[in-house]
Amino acid sequence: MSVTFETHPSRYRHWKLETAPDHARLTMKVDEAGGLSPGYALKLNSYDLGVDIELADAVMRLRFEHPEVSVVTIESALDGMFCAGANIFMLAHADHGFKVNFCKFTNETRLAIEDASANSGQRYVAALNGTCSGGGYELALACEEIILVNDRRSAVSLPEIAYLGVLPGTGGLTRLVDKRKVRRDLADVFATLAEGVRGARAVKWGLVDAVAPRSRFAEAVAERVASLVDPARAGRAGVALDALAPAESGTEIRYRHLTLRLDLSRRLAELSIDGPQGVPAIPAEAAALGADFYPLRLFREIDDALLRLRFNYPAIGLVLIKSAGSLDRVVELDRALWKRRGDWFVNETLLLMKRVLKRLDLTAKSFFALVEPGSCFAGSMFELALAADRIYMKSGVDARIATGALNGGALPMGNGLSRLETRFIADPARAAALAAGGTFDADAALAAGLVTAAPDELDWEEELRLAIGERLSLSPDALTGMEASIRFAGPETMETRIFGRLSAWQNWIFQRPNAIGEHGALKLYGQPQSPQFDYTRT
Amino acid sequence: MSVTFETHPSRYRHWKLETAPDHARLTMKVDEAGGLSPGYALKLNSYDLGVDIELADAVMRLRFEHPEVSVVTIESALDGMFCAGANIFMLAHADHGFKVNFCKFTNETRLAIEDASANSGQRYVAALNGTCSGGGYELALACEEIILVNDRRSAVSLPEIAYLGVLPGTGGLTRLVDKRKVRRDLADVFATLAEGVRGARAVKWGLVDAVAPRSRFAEAVAERVASLVDPARAGRAGVALDALAPAESGTEIRYRHLTLRLDLSRRLAELSIDGPQGVPAIPAEAAALGADFYPLRLFREIDDALLRLRFNYPAIGLVLIKSAGSLDRVVELDRALWKRRGDWFVNETLLLMKRVLKRLDLTAKSFFALVEPGSCFAGSMFELALAADRIYMKSGVDARIATGALNGGALPMGNGLSRLETRFIADPARAAALAAGGTFDADAALAAGLVTAAPDELDWEEELRLAIGERLSLSPDALTGMEASIRFAGPETMETRIFGRLSAWQNWIFQRPNAIGEHGALKLYGQPQSPQFDYTRT
Repeated sequence: MSVTFETHPSRYRHWKLETAPDHARLTMKVDEAGGLSPGYALKLNSYDLGVDIELADAVMRLRFEHPEVSVVTIESALDGMFCAGANIFMLAHADHGFKVNFCKFTNETRLAIEDASANSGQRYVAALNGTCSGGGYELALACEEIILVNDRRSAVSLPEIAYLGVLPGTGGLTRLVDKRKVRRDLADVFATLAEGVRGARAVKWGLVDAVAPRSRFAEAVAERVASLVDPARAGRAGVALDALAPAESGTEIRYRHLTLRLDLSRRLAELSIDGPQGVPAIPAEAAALGADFYPLRLFREIDDALLRLRFNYPAIGLVLIKSAGSLDRVVELDRALWKRRGDWFVNETLLLMKRVLKRLDLTAKSFFALVEPGSCFAGSMFELALAADRIYMKSGVDARIATGALNGGALPMGNGLSRLETRFIADPARAAALAAGGTFDADAALAAGLVTAAPDELDWEEELRLAIGERLSLSPDALTGMEASIRFAGPETMETRIFGRLSAWQNWIFQRPNAIGEHGALKLYGQPQSPQFDYTRT
Repeated sequence: MSVTFETHPSRYRHWKLETAPDHARLTMKVDEAGGLSPGYALKLNSYDLGVDIELADAVMRLRFEHPEVSVVTIESALDGMFCAGANIFMLAHADHGFKVNFCKFTNETRLAIEDASANSGQRYVAALNGTCSGGGYELALACEEIILVNDRRSAVSLPEIAYLGVLPGTGGLTRLVDKRKVRRDLADVFATLAEGVRGARAVKWGLVDAVAPRSRFAEAVAERVASLVDPARAGRAGVALDALAPAESGTEIRYRHLTLRLDLSRRLAELSIDGPQGVPAIPAEAAALGADFYPLRLFREIDDALLRLRFNYPAIGLVLIKSAGSLDRVVELDRALWKRRGDWFVNETLLLMKRVLKRLDLTAKSFFALVEPGSCFAGSMFELALAADRIYMKSGVDARIATGALNGGALPMGNGLSRLETRFIADPARAAALAAGGTFDADAALAAGLVTAAPDELDWEEELRLAIGERLSLSPDALTGMEASIRFAGPETMETRIFGRLSAWQNWIFQRPNAIGEHGALKLYGQPQSPQFDYTRT
């Protein structure tokens, strides 16, 4: 199955997006027959990857196309049922790698919702008009506020442990204790209680922010929406995001500024970026630059390429990142962005770049960046190299890298630090000095610690050949575990905890016989037999 | 195989402990034929659990029995070989649960070394007289300083990924980037380079602190030792730790202050603690209290019981924690300990209590604490309840709990917070107010959030029966993942990252076919065939 990630509200099968000047309404009405794969029905607003791709699209379009909107409510079109969570039959039949990537993507979408609330001022409210289970509640947890109907029936719940023998893997457990700061023993009771918690108790435990009776529910939601509206946004005119529509062949996906080359027999890919052709003056209303604005377009293309790499090319083990263009132009463009970061459109562009770089940090493939003559790894483009596991730079030739305005914290990692701060975790002063800007040839870059190795022309081919061959020979599982452990030095945040701790445990559980064996709980869900567990505690 | 954890330097098979007034020498000379199980030879100072049990014993005895020692060097009796790491043949044939528990225990021992350096002023230096691989280097990483012989041959290395397809799971990757703050791309190169790094490069990359040629090695180590000696410790007289020697039957392990009852058919255990019989005055030299001092003895017993539970009773899923004794006496004893924390022996006792409570936090079994009339869950004893997943307290009867001097941060969790601070992560002021001390009946405890539920006498039996039955019915894997995710809200530290992130990834990898399948790297190590990997990236 080859997944595509581009969609548009006019083609949504599972969501309805309605926008008014202040308030957007994102209504879930999952098409039972609209599953991404055959073999399961998406009943009761349960979702699969296709449903979440539409949600991710809507969240992004709301930011760029509807910047006047202050508040987004997430609602359900079903009566008495908000969302039943991820579709179990889909999960029970998906292979391990797909399940893991599915959870990662859904969580990235939830983080994008939180990013919109926190950094774009576009605030999300979950209006739970009925029962909200599992991944449905995880979606609600990603919203800034949760309002639950109080009708003696509608509960929030995380039934994964009780019913499926797996974890709520889209951040559920971590958001409970780290974001909503639910007391750990109450979190324990809640997460093992299949039927969930409703009404006043849900408020008392901190699981929702408010409840309202059915008769007053719409009114209560409307009141909260009204209180969150920011009149300052009213005048903004959005930017329509056109389709990326890359040209795809068996060996190549070609975008406007980016080409992804695939050597499937070697399990090797090459992600080649073309630098900006010019640096446009940013007008008073930056949005006039439109969707063609280079960094917006480029990073949307990188995002799409990363998602295709994850889902459609699981065998690819190593991605070489290359660039070609003018170093100075990238520096200049970054400086212009940074100077105008107070403009909503520039801010959204920077936030998108940040999220795409995080998606790279979290992609379970190895990345080597290659710096050669003609490369343009400067500033924001150098962040791609800093996100890579290693950086090789050819010495004795006219290859340079440059740091600049966007290396100082404008594009933070999930741990809250810049990539330079993470790289030089032992020496914050050096990170700050380097972020102040500079241009480096290979010797200077090596001395400054900005690159991993700087072979000269004579050694370049051979050293790369060996490094690539070695990387591709190693256990892919060990590499995934290693990269997840060393890419994120320093502090942890809710975000790094979700991907680092919770996801790793979920991955473990997802392949245990107690979940997916012949008698496992996930496998047998919905069937008459009860699961049989090996009760050995590990 | 039933493992026992008590040993004594006079019985060590793998280590030699030599103490001089200032400096102790802990020399590794592993008995090849002394493996804990048959079927593998402990060549080249490779180790198994038995070797690490002796190390853990030595580290504890050094603190209590040799408090005059300022510096401990860890050395090897072999020529040109410090330690080859965990024995691969042992790992390749151990079951999944044992491997996971083995890694956890070895890491706890490494953390005890770090705790001694940081909080007891007994500082560890790794004197690497030869090659130091895998778990050997992880042991070195736990020391405050690492000195490596510089002889063109001796390297430090983490060959797990390259040779075995698994991670250095005893904290290796995390200590690289979080403790030694090695640059992430250099950590990537190092952790995938089977032959490791030696000499000046090892210093430059931050992998070791210093190198010295063979001819000057002993001298260089002696100089570092001399510079670390603290003359103020000279006058201290140690306390010999006698054997716990519990009476063990098929259904019970009985210690002096603690009884562990085992209901194997129900997979349920009960850990019952007898409170202190009296509160001795702490003399000017607190060490005169000796190894019989109640909290020292009790927490040593709890430690031993937890280790037996982990290794010898893998099917036990739930442990009920009970206590009986005088609440006031515990409060008084805690207060006395806290007042005299400047005394080395009292300090060591508190540090031991801290480590044992952390061992409880990290035990992959569910814990419910039960508070009934006659319970003595006060202060340090209440920490055991706070470490449990839930606390049930009987209401309408004369059951009380109390907080006191040791609930305010004297016994921190791995995340650096007290258990009250972690419990009330949303409300630090409440945590502080509760830690100031107080006595609570069930209604007050419930209102204060100190207990999970407070059923009255009529409901007590039935509510517990249901809760216990439910807990024992759930997937043990899902519970392990859930508990690891919600027990440690709030900040993360190197320690929580090792157990939360690194261990979870290692657990995942440890059961993947690429490691343990018929053609897996761990399985085939030392055999003529090369491993065959499924290169799908997850």
